[in-house]
Amino acid sequence: MSGSSSKGIHPIVWADGHLRLLDQRVLPHEERWVECHNALHVAEAIHGMAVRGAPAIGIAAAYGLVLDALAGRDYDAAELVLMESRPTAVNLRWALARMRAVHSLGYDARRLLAEAQLIHAEDLAQNLEMARLGAALLPLNAQVITHCNTGALATGGHGTALGVIRSAYAEGRIAQVYNTETRPWLQGARLTAWELQRENIPDKLIADGAAAHLMASEKIDWVIVGADRIAVNGDTANKIGTYALAVAARHHGVKFMVVAPSGTFDLKCPNGAAIPIEQRPAHELTELRGSVIAPVDMDAWNPVFDVTPASLIDAIVCESGVILNPDEQKIRALLG
Amino acid sequence: MSGSSSKGIHPIVWADGHLRLLDQRVLPHEERWVECHNALHVAEAIHGMAVRGAPAIGIAAAYGLVLDALAGRDYDAAELVLMESRPTAVNLRWALARMRAVHSLGYDARRLLAEAQLIHAEDLAQNLEMARLGAALLPLNAQVITHCNTGALATGGHGTALGVIRSAYAEGRIAQVYNTETRPWLQGARLTAWELQRENIPDKLIADGAAAHLMASEKIDWVIVGADRIAVNGDTANKIGTYALAVAARHHGVKFMVVAPSGTFDLKCPNGAAIPIEQRPAHELTELRGSVIAPVDMDAWNPVFDVTPASLIDAIVCESGVILNPDEQKIRALLG
Repeated sequence: MSGSSSKGIHPIVWADGHLRLLDQRVLPHEERWVECHNALHVAEAIHGMAVRGAPAIGIAAAYGLVLDALAGRDYDAAELVLMESRPTAVNLRWALARMRAVHSLGYDARRLLAEAQLIHAEDLAQNLEMARLGAALLPLNAQVITHCNTGALATGGHGTALGVIRSAYAEGRIAQVYNTETRPWLQGARLTAWELQRENIPDKLIADGAAAHLMASEKIDWVIVGADRIAVNGDTANKIGTYALAVAARHHGVKFMVVAPSGTFDLKCPNGAAIPIEQRPAHELTELRGSVIAPVDMDAWNPVFDVTPASLIDAIVCESGVILNPDEQKIRALLG
Repeated sequence: MSGSSSKGIHPIVWADGHLRLLDQRVLPHEERWVECHNALHVAEAIHGMAVRGAPAIGIAAAYGLVLDALAGRDYDAAELVLMESRPTAVNLRWALARMRAVHSLGYDARRLLAEAQLIHAEDLAQNLEMARLGAALLPLNAQVITHCNTGALATGGHGTALGVIRSAYAEGRIAQVYNTETRPWLQGARLTAWELQRENIPDKLIADGAAAHLMASEKIDWVIVGADRIAVNGDTANKIGTYALAVAARHHGVKFMVVAPSGTFDLKCPNGAAIPIEQRPAHELTELRGSVIAPVDMDAWNPVFDVTPASLIDAIVCESGVILNPDEQKIRALLG
């Protein structure tokens, strides 16, 4: 079974009683598969970043439990090793809790497999619905900018922001995509560019710092991004660099769209100021693929995420609907 | 003679009858010197990017003519090889024309050496004067952002934007510098970080896309950048990414300063729209130090420079004075 075809990219494949994960560490150079035959293999793939993206991690972990169940191994041990593979991942905990609820009905590997496949299928279905809703917001022959990787590689398939772009392209609404390289981890250059090239969607890579100049030079219709966490007032935490795109978009009259499933909303979080932003170590900026690109012992300010205030967001698209000019009232009305 | 000392960084050194150039290709890993004994050596250093930065290239080329003159070699041949080392460099042509004017008085190696040293000394003097004027604009304990490399490495010494930061730090006006890595060439990460670390000026490296989030998170007083070319209305072409910083600065109420000698103004250029922006090949984005970081044959939109409109610039500092809220009338009044 091929992991990618003309009908899409499928980086998480359950086949012949085991799990195959497309190794995102070696993309775009090589399409290598990690073959997982037990929960520990899956935990190692998550911990080692062979699989990344919150929904993709949750789905892979669910299948990890199935692998140990099929071999009759201890459920609690499998759950523990998976939980510890990426302790901060919200989707991972959510998927394990959902599998635990099924397991509490009795240890049944076939039922666990059905639940894992349902988690996978539901994520894909949500993405397809978001893509339909988001694509409808675009004019024909739109030129769009996207950031980071929010595609099939990060989800159960299709993607969030990149899912909108995929569906919009299929509908003839996209003339040109520009994708940021997304420093420091280069998810845009490595992964988004690979996905778009794979499906022959016209795409040009840009340096993160070139996006504002692009908006001044070309007619850009929308910036389309994903989200890590959305506060109840619509303030959105996403990959570092997102906020700079939102500021530049507003300055140039370019529309700004956030695409994220309803599970991304944190209704207990009042606003962006309440979202903690993790600072990462300096070496992620000073080294690249083993090559040192800045002075040794250089200090850095290296946040993973930034917060885009709701006031700069024209539309939030989730599977239950579109929220234009988001605010707390509209968000509670849709998700309440 | 050391090329760097506690009194500053001197990457162009005339000593013992020959020219020594600090090789910028291997910084910050290694401080290696290119020893030039004739014009061809200098031309190779310019063509091969061992020396970069418009003023530095002009100064090196002037010394290149001196090297061949001291050996009694043909002046026209030396001039030609240097001219062809970087055909688009405006400062290179300017320096060669100035040397040619001296040569037209008679072939005298000592007189040519005196002129090359004068070009070098004048550039340094201009930088020191700009630094004095620019530093006076900063409050005490300022936090500033700078972009690309505009330091001693790019000039005859001290630097333009980085010269302002150096002098302001010496006056106790700088609490913290943040310097962008400056993709795709990483002049910020490699060169500016090295210069600031060398002089113990507190500096943190940031991803280009993190600057807007930094302005939202910390009190930033000024963004301080250099210029490649300034139109008569004040529109400023500079390294790609500058415009994004200017847009973000305005959004956050952060002041924006351009530091450039008066020779950077092109009084025949009416505005930024008349400044041609060179597009560079995709591989400069898709490869880094021999490592491929994006799909092969990836298309890219890779402009070297962008244009910041005068309306986003709070001050242009040149050696003849400071222009606040620049416009054509003020620029002509100062430079006229």
